[in-house]
Amino acid sequence: MLRIKYDDMVAEFERILLKKGFDAETAGRSAKLFADNSLDGIYSHGVNRFPRVMSYVDKGYIKIDAKPTVEASMGSFERWDGNLAMGNTNAQSAMDRAIELARTSGIGIVAIKNTNHWMRGGTFGWQAADAGMIGMCWTNTMPNMPAWGTKDRNIGNNPFVMAIPRSNKEHVVIDCAMAQFSYGKIEQTKIEGKQLPVAGGFDTEGRISTDPTEIEKTWRVLPMGFWKGSGMSIALDLIAAVLSGGNSVTSVGKNCEDEYGLSQVVIAIDPSQMNSINMTDGIINEVLEEIKASEASDTNGKIFYPGEMEMNTRKDNRENGIPVVEDIWNTITAM
Amino acid sequence: MLRIKYDDMVAEFERILLKKGFDAETAGRSAKLFADNSLDGIYSHGVNRFPRVMSYVDKGYIKIDAKPTVEASMGSFERWDGNLAMGNTNAQSAMDRAIELARTSGIGIVAIKNTNHWMRGGTFGWQAADAGMIGMCWTNTMPNMPAWGTKDRNIGNNPFVMAIPRSNKEHVVIDCAMAQFSYGKIEQTKIEGKQLPVAGGFDTEGRISTDPTEIEKTWRVLPMGFWKGSGMSIALDLIAAVLSGGNSVTSVGKNCEDEYGLSQVVIAIDPSQMNSINMTDGIINEVLEEIKASEASDTNGKIFYPGEMEMNTRKDNRENGIPVVEDIWNTITAM
Repeated sequence: MLRIKYDDMVAEFERILLKKGFDAETAGRSAKLFADNSLDGIYSHGVNRFPRVMSYVDKGYIKIDAKPTVEASMGSFERWDGNLAMGNTNAQSAMDRAIELARTSGIGIVAIKNTNHWMRGGTFGWQAADAGMIGMCWTNTMPNMPAWGTKDRNIGNNPFVMAIPRSNKEHVVIDCAMAQFSYGKIEQTKIEGKQLPVAGGFDTEGRISTDPTEIEKTWRVLPMGFWKGSGMSIALDLIAAVLSGGNSVTSVGKNCEDEYGLSQVVIAIDPSQMNSINMTDGIINEVLEEIKASEASDTNGKIFYPGEMEMNTRKDNRENGIPVVEDIWNTITAM
Repeated sequence: MLRIKYDDMVAEFERILLKKGFDAETAGRSAKLFADNSLDGIYSHGVNRFPRVMSYVDKGYIKIDAKPTVEASMGSFERWDGNLAMGNTNAQSAMDRAIELARTSGIGIVAIKNTNHWMRGGTFGWQAADAGMIGMCWTNTMPNMPAWGTKDRNIGNNPFVMAIPRSNKEHVVIDCAMAQFSYGKIEQTKIEGKQLPVAGGFDTEGRISTDPTEIEKTWRVLPMGFWKGSGMSIALDLIAAVLSGGNSVTSVGKNCEDEYGLSQVVIAIDPSQMNSINMTDGIINEVLEEIKASEASDTNGKIFYPGEMEMNTRKDNRENGIPVVEDIWNTITAM
C-alpha cells in the first residue's frame, strides 16, 4: 500500500482532468473534491473511483464543456439543470448557492436535475458546516435495491446527509445510504472470507443473510432498517425528482444506460443569526459529551460521533499520506 | 372491540379538552388531530394515548392557557417558543406557518422549542401534502435508546417525516422513528407470545435479539439500521436543538421530569410554481407503478407504498367506525 501526499494526489487528478478537456477551474475543484474524499478515508468515492469516472467522461456520460444553469427561481428555492457536467463540482456549486440563499433568508434550497454522481455526499455536508450552516442533502441513484416486499431492484440507495457546524470545525456529519451495506462493502467482505456484521441481503432461498457470497447470488441487498430504509428511499427519490423536475430512480433505470442524469437536493440553514457560536457549540458539546460518557457496549469499544472517524483519518492521512493500492495508483499515473 | 364513529370521537375529545380548560379553538383542533390519528390506524398516538396526555395536562407539563410565540424571524426561517402548549396544535400551527412561508419564498422552516409531544408526526406531513407542499419534519424525544456502541439510553427515537403531495390526495407519507420498533410494538409482541420479525434490541448477555421478553429486561432497543439510525438520531436531535435554541434529547433527560420541553423542525417546500400538477403526479405515479409491478417477495405479499396502508385504514374506519378497546373508551367517556 502506497501513501500518497494529498497535494500530489490533487495535482495528479488535476493533470488528468485537464488532459480530458475540463477547464482549469472545474479541473481544480473536481480534483480537490476527489482527493478530499480519499483524505477522509472514503477511498471508494475518491481515488478508487477516479478511473471509472474518467471512463464516464470518455463515454460522454459526463460532459467536459457543461456547466449547471439556473432553470427556475422562487425566493429561497432554485431549480438547476446540471447539464450532465461533472457531478462533484455541480453539487458543490449547488450547495454554495444554497448557503448564499440561507445567508439572506435563513434557509436556501437548490434542486438539481440532470447531474452526475456526486461521489461522497458527506462532502457537501462538510461544505455547509464549514460555512457555519446546517446542511442537508441527498441524491437519487440508479435502481440498486428491492423495495421492501419485492424481489426486483426498483429503488435507489439514495444517500442522505446531515451536517451540524461547530466553531472548531469538528463538525457532526452523517452520510447515510439507505442500503444497510454498499456493494463495495459486500464484495470486500467476500474477498476477506468473512461474514457481514449484521444481515445485508437475501440468499437464493429468500432468507435474510449475513453471507456475502450468498447475497451476491441475488444482489437483493437489504434496506437499512428493512421496511424503514425502503420507505425513506422512496420518499427521498420522489422529493428529489419532483423538486428538480428531473429523473426519479425509476426513470434513471428506464432512460439512462448507466448511473447518470441524477436528481439531487441541497439545503443550507443558517443558525448564526439566532444563536451565538458559543450557544450552538454548547448544545452540541453537551450531547456529544453525554454519549461519550456512556458505558461502551464492548469492553474495548470506543464511542464515536458521526463524522469523528473521518476527521481522525483526515489528520492521519494529511500527515502520513493517503493509502492507495499500488495497482490503482499506477493506473492513474498512466492516464 | 368497539367501533366508534369519527365524529363521536372528535366530540368526546373536545368535551374533555374544554373541561380541562383549553379554549374552544385549541380544543377543537386538538380533538380532531387525536381522532385523525386513530382514523388512520395510529391508535398508539390517538385514542390510546389520550388519557396519558390528559394526565400531563393535570401535572402541568402541558399548559392549557399557552400559545406558541414567534421568538425570532429571518426571511423564510422562524424560531418559535412553544410555551409548553398542547403539542399537536403547536406542531400544526408551525407547519401552517411553514406552508405560508413556502408559498411566498419556495421553502419555509419553523423550528419550535419548548413544545410537547406532537403525537403522530405523520399528521404534519399529511398537512403539508394536503396544501400541495413537500413536507419534512422531525421531533426529538426523551432519551430512550442507546447510541450504537453504548449501553445507556442516551439518544431519542426522534421520528422523521417526509411527505410528497398528489392531486388525488393519496399522498406518499413516511413517518419513521429512528428505533427499529416502538416500545409499544415490543410490549404488544410480548403479550401475544410472539417473536419480533427482525432483531429489535439486546438481551442481558449483550446479544442482538428478536425476543421481546429478553429485550424488556434491558430496554436496550436497536436503532433502525444499527449504527445508521443511531447516527441519524443524533443529527436530527442536534439540528432541532440548534435551530430552535431549545432542549436536546440530552437536556430533556437532564432537565425535564418526563417527556416535555421538546424541540421540533417543520419544513414545507412548494413545487407548484415550477411543476404543473400533472407533472408532479406523473413523476410520482411512474415510481409507484414500477414498485407495485415488481415481483413480490412473498407469494401472498401485497406491495404498499409509504402512506398507503394508513389511507386504506382511513377509508375503512371512516365507514365502519374506529376500533377502540372497550376499557379505553370507558376510561375516556368517564373523564
